[in-house]
Amino acid sequence: MISLESGAILILSGPSGCGKSTLLKELYKSVNKYYFSISTTTRLPRVGEQNGVDYFFVTKEQFEEGIQKGEFLEYAEVHGNYYGTSLKPILLALEENKLVIFDIDVQGQDIVKKSELNRYVTSVFITTPSLEVLKNRLYSRATDSNDVIEKRVRNAVIEINSIDKYDYIIINDDLQKASLELVSVARSAMLKTSLFSKDHIVSKWLN
Amino acid sequence: MISLESGAILILSGPSGCGKSTLLKELYKSVNKYYFSISTTTRLPRVGEQNGVDYFFVTKEQFEEGIQKGEFLEYAEVHGNYYGTSLKPILLALEENKLVIFDIDVQGQDIVKKSELNRYVTSVFITTPSLEVLKNRLYSRATDSNDVIEKRVRNAVIEINSIDKYDYIIINDDLQKASLELVSVARSAMLKTSLFSKDHIVSKWLN
Repeated sequence: MISLESGAILILSGPSGCGKSTLLKELYKSVNKYYFSISTTTRLPRVGEQNGVDYFFVTKEQFEEGIQKGEFLEYAEVHGNYYGTSLKPILLALEENKLVIFDIDVQGQDIVKKSELNRYVTSVFITTPSLEVLKNRLYSRATDSNDVIEKRVRNAVIEINSIDKYDYIIINDDLQKASLELVSVARSAMLKTSLFSKDHIVSKWLN
Repeated sequence: MISLESGAILILSGPSGCGKSTLLKELYKSVNKYYFSISTTTRLPRVGEQNGVDYFFVTKEQFEEGIQKGEFLEYAEVHGNYYGTSLKPILLALEENKLVIFDIDVQGQDIVKKSELNRYVTSVFITTPSLEVLKNRLYSRATDSNDVIEKRVRNAVIEINSIDKYDYIIINDDLQKASLELVSVARSAMLKTSLFSKDHIVSKWLN
């Protein structure tokens, strides 16, 4: 008797303003067991940020010890602070047959896809229907300064050029449609044959 | 403005008795535009079979002319009759942005995946939770002779060993669950980045 249960990894990327956070909230309602991957950082918590919710906050010494012990799936130094993804909680979540969700950029996706975890990975690039729509959203939500918005826009133009590195593309034009699409991709991510060992499937099926 | 529309190919394989036909009927309700690929054959129609519904029925001469003109995506001779898949209706359906659905075996899947159409393909293997459940279903539906059932069972054991050639696996234990899974895979199949040209996406997005 086959019981097909395995953890899987769903990577979401997309420019700030593409509506990823809203789509994620919808996704959480439809997936039974998930673990949203939390980054580890050496930067200080901002007001309202919680350890273990927004980030795992550690000291520079702790982070560098982690690097030496090979505890990070990926890490980078940005403006003097380290940011990284610890392998341990991900492996634990996979063992518990959870869908591990990453909200990372194009470079992060590259690293995870080139890692030993590749067979677990499904990746999705989420974007607005056009650059103009993205600009409109960023300016109208008015949470960022013009400088920050322009930086986000420049990044978005670079990132859309990496679209072919992703398995799937979702255009967030209509929230309900995009949400249905993301849920479909997440459900499929749990059914990939690469998640399972062929020998295991065959022997379970025969008995 | 990106409008992401493309045809795609969904290949379904699985042993006779796995519930494929029922799942297909459910799938048709959820997919907007689809084309179920109909095989061409030189064998005579059986009682109740309709040309263009069950098969395209042609003469041996017509079929061999088709072979010479390269009109078949794949074909085989079985017990003196030809069976094949014409390329033309598939290319037409893809042009019309339809989901082209194939109900073919492991060898057929191999050929389509190795063809120029590969970038359109998502493949799913559907099976029962165990060999015993398959046997029970085949014997209880009582539509085949014991000889035929035993041949189907032998084939199923061979086919389950090719599971790793497929993108996805669905265990049809609970019809509602399996149906939801198939619909999810079909929806995802229409969102694969390989369906689209990167240059097209980028230029549409920028303008």
